[in-house]
Amino acid sequence: MVRLVILGSGNVAFHLAKAFQSQQQVSVEAIWVRRPEKHPDFQNYTYRVVESIKELPQADIYLIAVSDSAIATVANQLPVSEAMVVHTSGATALNILDKHRNRGVFYPVQSFSSKGVLKYTDIPVLLETNLASNRENLQILAEALSGKYRWADSEERLQYHLAATIVNNFSNHFYHLAERHLAAKGLDFNQLKPLIAETARKIEHLAPGDAQTGPAKRKDEITINKHLEALEDEHLKTLYKQITLSILNSDEKL
Amino acid sequence: MVRLVILGSGNVAFHLAKAFQSQQQVSVEAIWVRRPEKHPDFQNYTYRVVESIKELPQADIYLIAVSDSAIATVANQLPVSEAMVVHTSGATALNILDKHRNRGVFYPVQSFSSKGVLKYTDIPVLLETNLASNRENLQILAEALSGKYRWADSEERLQYHLAATIVNNFSNHFYHLAERHLAAKGLDFNQLKPLIAETARKIEHLAPGDAQTGPAKRKDEITINKHLEALEDEHLKTLYKQITLSILNSDEKL
Repeated sequence: MVRLVILGSGNVAFHLAKAFQSQQQVSVEAIWVRRPEKHPDFQNYTYRVVESIKELPQADIYLIAVSDSAIATVANQLPVSEAMVVHTSGATALNILDKHRNRGVFYPVQSFSSKGVLKYTDIPVLLETNLASNRENLQILAEALSGKYRWADSEERLQYHLAATIVNNFSNHFYHLAERHLAAKGLDFNQLKPLIAETARKIEHLAPGDAQTGPAKRKDEITINKHLEALEDEHLKTLYKQITLSILNSDEKL
Repeated sequence: MVRLVILGSGNVAFHLAKAFQSQQQVSVEAIWVRRPEKHPDFQNYTYRVVESIKELPQADIYLIAVSDSAIATVANQLPVSEAMVVHTSGATALNILDKHRNRGVFYPVQSFSSKGVLKYTDIPVLLETNLASNRENLQILAEALSGKYRWADSEERLQYHLAATIVNNFSNHFYHLAERHLAAKGLDFNQLKPLIAETARKIEHLAPGDAQTGPAKRKDEITINKHLEALEDEHLKTLYKQITLSILNSDEKL
């Protein structure tokens, strides 16, 4: 059994606390929440909520789930001990925890933006640690979340985080641009939702290169020109041209 | 009961034929397939497959589900009659069917790229016709597919098609770019699949602007610079900068 303390009050902390709640192999000893009165959601757990880092109980792992810019501050406030100190950031190297002898990373490749329902067993976790002797405890944590983990060093994790930004934030931005474009014409973005769902679903069994369709893929200049004429917003028109060109050039590049 | 003839052998024709198979209100009298020997999938239907347009049976609606560039040719080969001639294209105006007195458009807002399973009841259909008296038959067709239809003129339909291209083809292109980036580093695109699914799922209950997360959204220059340093491919780096800038400027624009 791994004794765990979670540090943080954001969505990652919230969801990990929830995911570990029903797990036999992980015992959440406390959650550090800097201003508990601002995070009433955490009162729904049976866990002890602690406001001061100095008052945290003993644990095997201190899991820092705070914003990237706050990791160093929180890590440096934690007393030096034999316990493993772990952060959850995709874009932050392991060595930010250098003050601690046993350190690790537990990066769930998922977007925790909402406090809605997430299927935890689907979430891949990227793990890293400085010592082989720490591996077992990190694995127990990953098994308790989803069972889907792999080892990745800080450089590999950054590449995954970059790719995650591209598929998640960039795609969502295009949803946003499409919604704004339709709204400007008094048209209804809801009409696109089944298509968005299908686009994501398709790559579960098809390589994205094979799933590519549309006017750029089939070099259909007539439709591309119709779209460019229909586009009044200069910014969206520029992006449309650039992505279309990128798709047009994709096949040659492979 | 609407008597229907489907013209075409692509994915749209295939899926519509399949969707109407079990419907009481629509009777598929025949499917026109130019080279039936090349499309054995159509033999699985109980429908009559006809190779020559001249031999098509009588029907209430002739539904042209061919590529945009072939619509005019097929429409002009169809004999003039009282039957309604309908195309399924998002980017093609109704008036391409001007030869026919009763004409319409039946545009399902979905990607039919694979012959896999699609949930037809989820597919919104945009309808258009030149005469009010044609509406009922088009509605029966839409009811038989999904029941989710709305009326849109050719200009509105083009705007939907453009927006569909943005959310579907552009998002998929970013999946492709991310996959290629990871592959170049020997890393595994599968790790991103649950994130891609969640990104699409989230906008079912959240406006895309509210669902936006990531370094650009929170103006996190440190992470953006780490990503830019991690990017070796100049093309992807340029796109990364442009989309990041577009997200950074998004809030001001609203």
